[in-house]
Amino acid sequence: MSDIPYRSALIIGAGPGISASLTKRLAVGGVSVAIAARNVDKLASLVDETGAVPLQVDASDASQVGRVFMEAEKRVGTPEIVVYNASGRVRGAITELDPSEVERAVAVSALGAFYCVQQAARRMLPNKKGAIILTGATAGVKGFALSSPFAMGKFALRGLAQSAARELAPQGIHVAHVVIDGGVRSNMRPDPDDRPDSTLDPDAIAQVYVDLLRQHRSAWSWEIEVRPWVETF
Amino acid sequence: MSDIPYRSALIIGAGPGISASLTKRLAVGGVSVAIAARNVDKLASLVDETGAVPLQVDASDASQVGRVFMEAEKRVGTPEIVVYNASGRVRGAITELDPSEVERAVAVSALGAFYCVQQAARRMLPNKKGAIILTGATAGVKGFALSSPFAMGKFALRGLAQSAARELAPQGIHVAHVVIDGGVRSNMRPDPDDRPDSTLDPDAIAQVYVDLLRQHRSAWSWEIEVRPWVETF
Amino acid sequence: MSDIPYRSALIIGAGPGISASLTKRLAVGGVSVAIAARNVDKLASLVDETGAVPLQVDASDASQVGRVFMEAEKRVGTPEIVVYNASGRVRGAITELDPSEVERAVAVSALGAFYCVQQAARRMLPNKKGAIILTGATAGVKGFALSSPFAMGKFALRGLAQSAARELAPQGIHVAHVVIDGGVRSNMRPDPDDRPDSTLDPDAIAQVYVDLLRQHRSAWSWEIEVRPWVETF
Amino acid sequence: MSDIPYRSALIIGAGPGISASLTKRLAVGGVSVAIAARNVDKLASLVDETGAVPLQVDASDASQVGRVFMEAEKRVGTPEIVVYNASGRVRGAITELDPSEVERAVAVSALGAFYCVQQAARRMLPNKKGAIILTGATAGVKGFALSSPFAMGKFALRGLAQSAARELAPQGIHVAHVVIDGGVRSNMRPDPDDRPDSTLDPDAIAQVYVDLLRQHRSAWSWEIEVRPWVETF
Repeated sequence: MSDIPYRSALIIGAGPGISASLTKRLAVGGVSVAIAARNVDKLASLVDETGAVPLQVDASDASQVGRVFMEAEKRVGTPEIVVYNASGRVRGAITELDPSEVERAVAVSALGAFYCVQQAARRMLPNKKGAIILTGATAGVKGFALSSPFAMGKFALRGLAQSAARELAPQGIHVAHVVIDGGVRSNMRPDPDDRPDSTLDPDAIAQVYVDLLRQHRSAWSWEIEVRPWVETF
Repeated sequence: MSDIPYRSALIIGAGPGISASLTKRLAVGGVSVAIAARNVDKLASLVDETGAVPLQVDASDASQVGRVFMEAEKRVGTPEIVVYNASGRVRGAITELDPSEVERAVAVSALGAFYCVQQAARRMLPNKKGAIILTGATAGVKGFALSSPFAMGKFALRGLAQSAARELAPQGIHVAHVVIDGGVRSNMRPDPDDRPDSTLDPDAIAQVYVDLLRQHRSAWSWEIEVRPWVETF
Repeated sequence: MSDIPYRSALIIGAGPGISASLTKRLAVGGVSVAIAARNVDKLASLVDETGAVPLQVDASDASQVGRVFMEAEKRVGTPEIVVYNASGRVRGAITELDPSEVERAVAVSALGAFYCVQQAARRMLPNKKGAIILTGATAGVKGFALSSPFAMGKFALRGLAQSAARELAPQGIHVAHVVIDGGVRSNMRPDPDDRPDSTLDPDAIAQVYVDLLRQHRSAWSWEIEVRPWVETF
Repeated sequence: MSDIPYRSALIIGAGPGISASLTKRLAVGGVSVAIAARNVDKLASLVDETGAVPLQVDASDASQVGRVFMEAEKRVGTPEIVVYNASGRVRGAITELDPSEVERAVAVSALGAFYCVQQAARRMLPNKKGAIILTGATAGVKGFALSSPFAMGKFALRGLAQSAARELAPQGIHVAHVVIDGGVRSNMRPDPDDRPDSTLDPDAIAQVYVDLLRQHRSAWSWEIEVRPWVETF
């Protein structure tokens, strides 16, 4: 099923969950995929299953991001799809939080995304083709108590997505922000028997990413929110 | 291509453009489609092409809406997909507008949608299955000068969509609101040669509706915005 | 305390609560106030206390609105402040609601506001001076389950406010929408002893309206949200 | 005119414009004011005029922020009002921006605000009293092209404001975010003769801050937008 109009992808902040499902779905669609994470060990089974190329990166470091794009370029070709999936989350009362942890959270959620959008744009603009998807959260549209660093990071990510969409879309680059509103199903968070599909199935989310990738340029979405049917929002 | 998880559809406010593309796309997907409009004459070629069942309705009249759902039920089965595509638009300075035209605009854009959501919900809830898509516009998120009746109607439609999504989604009915941000391509509004795809291709919009219909219930969107790549927003 | 830069006011949808507090506050500020309601009997004590002129109107009827503006004009002078405070609320499951009650709710919450904005604009534009404040609710920014008619009406009101602000502000008319997020204190809804100020004090809301009326035209707000300090939102 | 229910204030990111007007207005209202900036030299005339206490701080440095709060405490008493007015702005195409400048911009616009909110909350919570106002911009609600770092910083600031409001308001601290939508009048940007009041008068903005400070806790706003009457938005 070669139904995706791009040939190569780089997913930053890879791991289980959304990025694993997306890696599998892209591989099935004939896309060459590189997956980058701080800890590559946890990518081993996904690499075995899909043939994706594992890369190591701390996304909050601009120079490492530059390097990982060069590596991805060598291994899977210039990425035509870039997905930013990393986020930094630290919870706590405002009075109790450690400033350096707040900085780190914002750096991972938002600055890392900027570095990746920059590297992606430099490579995509010459071809006037490409798609950049940023994985957001409810926290990016609603700032919750006891979660100010996550609110800051995810709001900033949304601001980046909107600004980048306005800047890059007219140059042929589709930029989209996906608001994940709910818990993603995993081994750690199984779907409850008595409330089926009350957690987001990562395969279902991956399909939404693919829907975005397949949108015709005359009808692009810059943002889409997804949540389980039973979620009160 | 029987890729749509519903068997029957009723599109209210049918005509050329979005609803014609959607009718064709649903027919190809194996869905039986009824299309309802105030003026059925303009549906003739679409009926010929797709085998869709034409029905007559003034959507701003609650009893006519009740009747058209009964007819649709007889002709294509209980609608599992309901799309509300009618809208009432009147432009002008606030001081100059005719109150009765404002009432009519709000009735067509929003009250008619309520009647349809009500009729749809009554039929879908017993099966805990169905999808309702409401066609919105930029005017539903941004109220422009000299267009207050359209702003009122489309804001009201969005409020209905959000309320209905919160009420019906946990009962198995997917309610979605699509914000069409830009001009839809048509014979009257051809795509400009020097700015390709600067008008929304109705087939591309129809595909977005299909993407919504195919979403897994663990990752439903209640709203999606679409606009041409070159649109400044 | 003649601190309000307008001389005359018409409040539509008057009663106890916000409009009573506002009437008192405006009277203290030297403004001549007319107060209009469907049932004028309930205005008697407010009239006694403030000298405000009571007028009878069903705001959902365009011709009655035209007439009440003419009466107000005769009694307190051309209204330089117009406040729309009426709203139609009907709760219930979408499947159970009576269409005619839904129509009535939208007419009172939104169409009546349009008629008033129209009458106000016709009188204010020649002087390029005036303020129109529309009383909104949380329901205008968030559509709740089991409350679709109120969501429709209050969303429509917000769309009207935004459109009217864009249209009329550059002509010298300040249009503002106040989102009341919480329950307003009253005899029927006293402030709970164990959660002081968890209901909105109508005098506090009236002060916010006065703050809006006093804003300098170089820094106008078109919307302001108010809620009790303890409200989770 | 001792009309402000707080006795002491600390304004971070002080300079001409909004903070100068606010300093004067607070001083007139009987509030002891400390004003902090990276470059204190530019505060000299304001200090002369108002008796405000000048302090030096780089708001993007958490430890400097801690120190400036201690100094303010000694000089004007524990700040009951804290205003964050600093922002970092760098414009440019995403592909051209220097990552370290982006980091700096986000640090000044958003991280510095976090440090200040934290220091403020620690001092205000024991008394369950205080007000924190964060100066936002249009860029915090709409991400513009060629301005991604400012969008990131101002979106993050808005996320912080919303999160802090939800966390601190029920503990007695009023947190508010002011969206300045337009250019603020200054010597560098005089109000154009042919479009009077098309720039925001900083005194008018300061009055809006005072309106917020004076709001009753039963009707607090967490956000308010201000723009010139002629601004298309």
